[in-house]
Amino acid sequence: MDRRDPATPGIQRAATRPHYLKGIMNKQELRWNGWGRHDAPDTLGDKAEGIWKWLGAYTGLGTLPNTPALPLEQVSLPPIRLTDNQLGDLRAITSEERVKTDTYERAYHARGRSYHDMLYLRAGRLEHAPDAVIYPQSTEEVEALVTYADQNALAVIPYGGGSSVVGGVTPLLRPGQQGAITVDMALMDKVLEIDMMTMTAHIQAGIYGPALEKHLQENGVTLGHYPQSFEYSTLGGWIAARGAGHQSNRYGKAEDWLVSARIVTPRGVWDTEHFPKSAAGPQMRDLTPGSEGAFGIITDAWVHLHAVPEKKEYRAYFFSDFESGLKGVRSLLQAEVRTAMVRLSDANETFFYSVMHGGAEVAENGPMGFCLMLVGFEGGADEVARERTRAHTILADCGGADMGGGMGELWLSTRFETPYLRDPMLDHGLGVDTMETATDWKRLPQLHANVSAAMEDALSKYNPNPGSPGIAMAHVSHSYRNGASLYFTVVFPRKRDADIEQWLAIKKAVTDAIVLNGGTISHHHGTGTDHLPWLSQEKGPLGLSMLQSVKTTLDPKATMNPGKLVELP
Amino acid sequence: MDRRDPATPGIQRAATRPHYLKGIMNKQELRWNGWGRHDAPDTLGDKAEGIWKWLGAYTGLGTLPNTPALPLEQVSLPPIRLTDNQLGDLRAITSEERVKTDTYERAYHARGRSYHDMLYLRAGRLEHAPDAVIYPQSTEEVEALVTYADQNALAVIPYGGGSSVVGGVTPLLRPGQQGAITVDMALMDKVLEIDMMTMTAHIQAGIYGPALEKHLQENGVTLGHYPQSFEYSTLGGWIAARGAGHQSNRYGKAEDWLVSARIVTPRGVWDTEHFPKSAAGPQMRDLTPGSEGAFGIITDAWVHLHAVPEKKEYRAYFFSDFESGLKGVRSLLQAEVRTAMVRLSDANETFFYSVMHGGAEVAENGPMGFCLMLVGFEGGADEVARERTRAHTILADCGGADMGGGMGELWLSTRFETPYLRDPMLDHGLGVDTMETATDWKRLPQLHANVSAAMEDALSKYNPNPGSPGIAMAHVSHSYRNGASLYFTVVFPRKRDADIEQWLAIKKAVTDAIVLNGGTISHHHGTGTDHLPWLSQEKGPLGLSMLQSVKTTLDPKATMNPGKLVELP
Repeated sequence: MDRRDPATPGIQRAATRPHYLKGIMNKQELRWNGWGRHDAPDTLGDKAEGIWKWLGAYTGLGTLPNTPALPLEQVSLPPIRLTDNQLGDLRAITSEERVKTDTYERAYHARGRSYHDMLYLRAGRLEHAPDAVIYPQSTEEVEALVTYADQNALAVIPYGGGSSVVGGVTPLLRPGQQGAITVDMALMDKVLEIDMMTMTAHIQAGIYGPALEKHLQENGVTLGHYPQSFEYSTLGGWIAARGAGHQSNRYGKAEDWLVSARIVTPRGVWDTEHFPKSAAGPQMRDLTPGSEGAFGIITDAWVHLHAVPEKKEYRAYFFSDFESGLKGVRSLLQAEVRTAMVRLSDANETFFYSVMHGGAEVAENGPMGFCLMLVGFEGGADEVARERTRAHTILADCGGADMGGGMGELWLSTRFETPYLRDPMLDHGLGVDTMETATDWKRLPQLHANVSAAMEDALSKYNPNPGSPGIAMAHVSHSYRNGASLYFTVVFPRKRDADIEQWLAIKKAVTDAIVLNGGTISHHHGTGTDHLPWLSQEKGPLGLSMLQSVKTTLDPKATMNPGKLVELP
Repeated sequence: MDRRDPATPGIQRAATRPHYLKGIMNKQELRWNGWGRHDAPDTLGDKAEGIWKWLGAYTGLGTLPNTPALPLEQVSLPPIRLTDNQLGDLRAITSEERVKTDTYERAYHARGRSYHDMLYLRAGRLEHAPDAVIYPQSTEEVEALVTYADQNALAVIPYGGGSSVVGGVTPLLRPGQQGAITVDMALMDKVLEIDMMTMTAHIQAGIYGPALEKHLQENGVTLGHYPQSFEYSTLGGWIAARGAGHQSNRYGKAEDWLVSARIVTPRGVWDTEHFPKSAAGPQMRDLTPGSEGAFGIITDAWVHLHAVPEKKEYRAYFFSDFESGLKGVRSLLQAEVRTAMVRLSDANETFFYSVMHGGAEVAENGPMGFCLMLVGFEGGADEVARERTRAHTILADCGGADMGGGMGELWLSTRFETPYLRDPMLDHGLGVDTMETATDWKRLPQLHANVSAAMEDALSKYNPNPGSPGIAMAHVSHSYRNGASLYFTVVFPRKRDADIEQWLAIKKAVTDAIVLNGGTISHHHGTGTDHLPWLSQEKGPLGLSMLQSVKTTLDPKATMNPGKLVELP
């Protein structure tokens, strides 16, 4: 594989850095207020200086300021609300060393990993830090913890990788609750069984992506679930948030690859149905994906497997405009071409990432106007060759220009580096957030246009230098026969005296526009607290009542993850 | 296409009889106590005499008796429990002629179409006949009917084609209810919109299979849902029972092809989520398939479409034993070969249908021991050719002998005739029932053996001539990467003085064995009343509580289809 594709000058492949395969998860090795490991690579390398200069100019900020996060030493955490007796009880259930109350653990688990969370964490605003972080080692311990909390008016916050970007792990309390314990599932990380006869595996929920795939692939199989958070998210979190990996076209979303789950609720252990298919009434299992810890703690699950693909091929196409690219995606899906991934960036995003990968000099001639599509194929070598040929014909018919394999391979090998860009951006006075939705093909172009406009309008309105642009961009991230997911990214100068209000205004403008244009409030991020204000509109009054009745059945005291998915009572 | 494949002597193709495309549904043209049209063809033709003789010998009955059904003139229906005022109110909501109380309509709607139902209908035991049958023409009328019934303590029985084989449409009453109205959706049968951009259609729930496919195919598209009941079942019924068509490998089950639905509940109209995919919490839409009218009446739905396949090819393979056939099915599915259908009969069923199709002389040499597999491919001509080739290689590796296209084409063209065999069997003192399940590949061989044994044991025990065999047989009807559905058929001498008790004993023995061996109580027939005793075991206490809480939320007075899916209060 040629690492520098001559067809794509200016885009060079970064050295592969499989740091996410080092094996974790000692939280001390990870940033409590940022993404990933303390020793994470500098993604921008020697392009950094030029890029910061360009971003300063492009966002209207000029020279970017230095806006570091508050170090932990300068942060004061709220007092622990649990009594010594209670802490003793929790230690009796688990062990002395698996009930953590130190500052680092409490700070680390105070919030998820959204831009919104980062504003709180970096400012040292940890008023919602859990009172204790507990690491159970068995389903029995989880049961005992949930029962204890339920009987003692403590909130339980189920915690996988904590990579939620919708406020899914913030310890909130319902009225009357005395404190919050975060149950970190990291020690329940075993692959219990791989069954080649049924191509399924039984796996504990606390396993992180890299360990999961390492174990499976050593046995010739894969789950194929690679969300952007892959390095620092867990099986249980993927299910709870109804997540999607980059290659969901081939491997499915969590709701597709989940076979069955075990969930510890305040009312007892719930083992979902476990059949290839059933018509014995609605499958209550279907309520597990997206349950967000509000029903209970997922301790283990059976999932569908695939053979490790013999071949992976990722190629790039250029389209002269977004509309013809959209036609290309839709045509691939409706012709049932077997892709692993189809990712179509709009012109803004194509330009932005060209600069980020290629350096500031790429920006000199301004936006190019065209749109990049990455198409991935995974499977047997014959199948990949065949489906690539089919795709090529269809995309050419839609005006796609084949750019070869370079950019696709580059994306594949560097894709987990992108989240690391956020911390330095925040250090430079910039804000960056992502928002996503899904809608059908008919509504998608209008939604893209209207949400982009709403985003630009909000950026301009809440900009510290009114009128300066900010950057709004989007890509189609996951696609279906009847529609697709649109993933929006926004980069903007932070209003440093009111950055949370600025974010709330942008979030509201974007989500309102999404709902108004027929999109779901989330395709794969989940609901958490951040999307909750829009949930009733999406579910309708009866849908919401049904959801609440299920919540009340499993968790009558609202012990489980209060304020997520269902409003605080 | 050669209608007589020289490779399959003795099996001749019956003339194609597309009687199901005549356009219906005037209930007077249909049998109130049997399957389909009064003028249905005699499926056995000139093979009949020999086959009855063979069946008499094979089941140990000797010369088969003449056991006709009671004619409607000799049946007395229970008095109508609705007052004239109530009937007047219902007519004011709909119209004079769309509220039916005549004997034929009440008898027709008294039960579904299972063997169990037939025993009641043919004996004239119509104690559960509805008090009135109402044909609404609009969602508004359905709303008014449901509200009226809810306020006046009447049970509402949603009715599509009435082809339920699990007691799904029997009008039962909860304590305190005054009467039952059956709401027959046959007049709400319009294809409202076909959207080629999203490859979806918006269709009213009361449309029957043939009209639905005729309309769609005239527009170049298909739903592809062909259950055995296709001629006399409706879109709404398919969703409510979580049905599966013969070609579900390609087109999916109801839960797969459903995009969204509108359901009229006693608490109001529920419009489910309508997105390609969403992570905004659990999708309450997922509870619609399998809801069995117990939540409300499905009035219309959006469904996924496919292009009408350019090519259909159905081929037969012979396997020397069931196990190697199972390996063949599993290998096809796990290699992700694109089949429309894979159907593998066990040796008993292969023998039985060989005789039924070929005539009694085929039976002369006794069971052959081998197992017939039918494999169907549908799609573009290139795709069909390619996938057939892939399948052929895999099946040959598993010991499958290619028998060409004859038997597959025969099956495809005569498949809707099979249900017509039941009425003449019942007229000849024979009983016949079908039971189905799904389980994973690991459990499937054991389940097949144990359920077959339980069936034979029960047959022998409850046989009027103890020790005479009866016929127990099965086929894999729908398959998945992790398991498959097994469909059992049983033919036996009816114990005429206690035929319902005989059936209950067989049903209990089989269902107990299914549950004991890790199968679901239904893969695509549903729950109704017949499977209800086993539902709590399958769902578990928490799963059942969740289901009940949803029921109570939408239908607090248990107005909707009492005694189906959820126990009578």
